[in-house]
Amino acid sequence: MSTQPRIVEVRRNILKHNDQVAAELRERFQKAGVFVASLVSSPGSGKTAFLEKTLTLLKEKGYRPAAVVGDLATANDAERLARSQAPVKQITTGTLCHLEAAMIQTAIEGWDISELDFLFIENVGNLVCPSSYDLGENIRLVLLSVTEGEDKPLKYPTIFNSADLAVITKIDLADAVEFDRDAARSNIQSVRPGMPMLELSSKTSQGMDAWMAFLASKRPR
Amino acid sequence: MSTQPRIVEVRRNILKHNDQVAAELRERFQKAGVFVASLVSSPGSGKTAFLEKTLTLLKEKGYRPAAVVGDLATANDAERLARSQAPVKQITTGTLCHLEAAMIQTAIEGWDISELDFLFIENVGNLVCPSSYDLGENIRLVLLSVTEGEDKPLKYPTIFNSADLAVITKIDLADAVEFDRDAARSNIQSVRPGMPMLELSSKTSQGMDAWMAFLASKRPR
Repeated sequence: MSTQPRIVEVRRNILKHNDQVAAELRERFQKAGVFVASLVSSPGSGKTAFLEKTLTLLKEKGYRPAAVVGDLATANDAERLARSQAPVKQITTGTLCHLEAAMIQTAIEGWDISELDFLFIENVGNLVCPSSYDLGENIRLVLLSVTEGEDKPLKYPTIFNSADLAVITKIDLADAVEFDRDAARSNIQSVRPGMPMLELSSKTSQGMDAWMAFLASKRPR
Repeated sequence: MSTQPRIVEVRRNILKHNDQVAAELRERFQKAGVFVASLVSSPGSGKTAFLEKTLTLLKEKGYRPAAVVGDLATANDAERLARSQAPVKQITTGTLCHLEAAMIQTAIEGWDISELDFLFIENVGNLVCPSSYDLGENIRLVLLSVTEGEDKPLKYPTIFNSADLAVITKIDLADAVEFDRDAARSNIQSVRPGMPMLELSSKTSQGMDAWMAFLASKRPR
């Protein structure tokens, strides 16, 4: 379409500005000694349930985690996550389908991040828009629930390709939905060869030990 | 952010152009006597399974349906839908998170749409981007699977608000995921008061009769 080149150019400038802010954030996070993980997925893949479980378990182990969560509307997720007793900030994006680094910068104002061990950033539920926006994180997790279909990595290759760790969620429902584990794993690997994968259930806690061990390896104490 | 006003302006021009193309399409569809329904939802809500079932049932009843399906990558959906024997075209959008009216115009080139009773347009799996793009359809369906969580209408109000019919899918899994039907229905209604709702399962066919009756009312024979 004739309108495409113009929007591509505007988008490129926004991305360039975002990358600068993200680089500043990354430097601040590193100096403060906080390990930062962001989460992307479809709406309803279980990001918030996974994060609530993660925050609660980390608090129990004596760690100091915090979270920033993005949504178009409502502060529901922040309210759910606040039950873990960890500091939580909600970003509402209105009609924007992704978070940007400047929003993270604003959200963490007033926090002494050197007092944190882990910061989690939950992006807006979307398998397209968040892929190009660096948020200064150390790793990006892409979540895929067993109920979504094994083909999603092939259909949304960019977001899977931009992630560092794939988390297959709601594994407790695998039998009920006839989840094809081999297909899902091989589709993830075909899009992002060598990407580590975890399978877990926030409901039954299956697989959470491996995730906790991964996090502990990033902040040994 | 300082970059927002510029992109908003570019987006407004694109939308204006899209609306013109959509209006032309709508007129063509009306003259040809084809009823057009578009489908939006999260990735993995079951749009393609629902559409495959719909096309197959319509063919069995002697109707002439066709479908256009959008995805970032792969022609998997078109291949699945082609099993119904209905004409199907795949649009691959690359990194674009929604379909636009001009893409539909191109996709249906070569089809004699006056030979069709129904045309279904399956949008890219996304609860944000497709909301502002008119595709010339008669009605827009928003799908919500029971596995996604009852809160999605509140978190993605714009797309629910732009739809004409809400379809709750994968109802066969309602018990397994402890789906709260009342909460889901009341969340849909709070965002879009009066919107008709259907509950169904493409797997067990539960609720498909009501959907077929709805379609038959649009194309009485």
